Amino acid sequence: MGTSSTPSRSTRPREKSRSRDNAEKQELRASILRAASEEFLGHGYEGFSLRRVAERVGYTPTTIYLYFRDKDELLFETARDGFVAFDATIQAAATQSDPRERLRALGRAYFEFGVNNAAHYRLMFMQRADFLLPRLVGTAASEELHAAALLDPDSAHRVIAQDLLVGAVRDGIEAGLFRAGEPIAKADALWAGIHGLTALALSPLMSPEHARSVADELLDTLIRGLEP
Amino acid sequence: MGTSSTPSRSTRPREKSRSRDNAEKQELRASILRAASEEFLGHGYEGFSLRRVAERVGYTPTTIYLYFRDKDELLFETARDGFVAFDATIQAAATQSDPRERLRALGRAYFEFGVNNAAHYRLMFMQRADFLLPRLVGTAASEELHAAALLDPDSAHRVIAQDLLVGAVRDGIEAGLFRAGEPIAKADALWAGIHGLTALALSPLMSPEHARSVADELLDTLIRGLEP
Repeated sequence: MGTSSTPSRSTRPREKSRSRDNAEKQELRASILRAASEEFLGHGYEGFSLRRVAERVGYTPTTIYLYFRDKDELLFETARDGFVAFDATIQAAATQSDPRERLRALGRAYFEFGVNNAAHYRLMFMQRADFLLPRLVGTAASEELHAAALLDPDSAHRVIAQDLLVGAVRDGIEAGLFRAGEPIAKADALWAGIHGLTALALSPLMSPEHARSVADELLDTLIRGLEP
Repeated sequence: MGTSSTPSRSTRPREKSRSRDNAEKQELRASILRAASEEFLGHGYEGFSLRRVAERVGYTPTTIYLYFRDKDELLFETARDGFVAFDATIQAAATQSDPRERLRALGRAYFEFGVNNAAHYRLMFMQRADFLLPRLVGTAASEELHAAALLDPDSAHRVIAQDLLVGAVRDGIEAGLFRAGEPIAKADALWAGIHGLTALALSPLMSPEHARSVADELLDTLIRGLEP
């Protein structure tokens, strides 16, 4: 203030007001995201209403469109919390050095994440899987497109979980604990199994309690099935 | 006509007209179902429009409501074809006497049915699983409710497939080919695995071609995992 290095007095108030404007914008954006998150957790993907998000923050839907391109962008940003929590859960589970125990821990953590974060799991892996593979929206994925999407930094969330699975399978093969073979196909088989059980636990076809007891049976069967 | 056993002339025309009315009603009902089936196969569950079904048959939605209580009843009747085809596919696959080969054939048939009948599979096992378990609509299935629903004749479709899986596991245990244990939990673990792979093949997360190669890996791993 008043030192020679500060800008001329005439520009400073404008800058202050600009940064206050920015702070207000950031705050409103954060409020919209919080409201969207509440709306999403309360009503799920199918019941998600942009109009109700607007009501929660006390603005019109038009204001929301100043911050988010469309309902999908708002949902995607809301889902980021789910991706971040998913990554953290899966990474925290991958601590065991024995590849069999690591696979078991990964499988259990994946299943529990799904059952305990039903709205996010449904969105990420069932209803809007295209959020994970942004380049594949609405297309029947060819192998090439699929490979390209996996390298897409936006789909890093799936890659982290898949890398950990593939790594555990590879370590098990190298240690002679698992039969030789293509680690990616084996990891995808494991993923399919645990995804299927999670999806059933979130459907009326299997109660979460029954699915939890089946999880042990499934992981036992899959891990034994990998052995020589 | 004109014999002594026919009803009096005065009542016959009325009966004829009544049976003609009934025939016309049956025909219109069948037309609505055909149109609903086309609409469902073309637009899936999410895009299913009762208004467009009405347009296809050249009637108003009000007429359709004379034949079907609501959109759900129409969709359920439409889905019956899927249930019938699913049962036939699964039963035709269960011919092998070796329980391991029978499980492999059942798994492959289940997966191929899903990939080749995507709209029906999605409806039956992913979007409207409550159609299979009509008593569980919108509830979190407790074990008791779940057990009751499995005994419900309306959910016979799931029971057929599950009975075949449980039977193959039980036969394998009795023959000493599989480890001892609870056949239902093991059968549910197999079901979860193959359902998961089918669901991924119908999502943008895995191409059907890749899923088909993973299917062999998954079935190998699961069946080996059941062995002593």
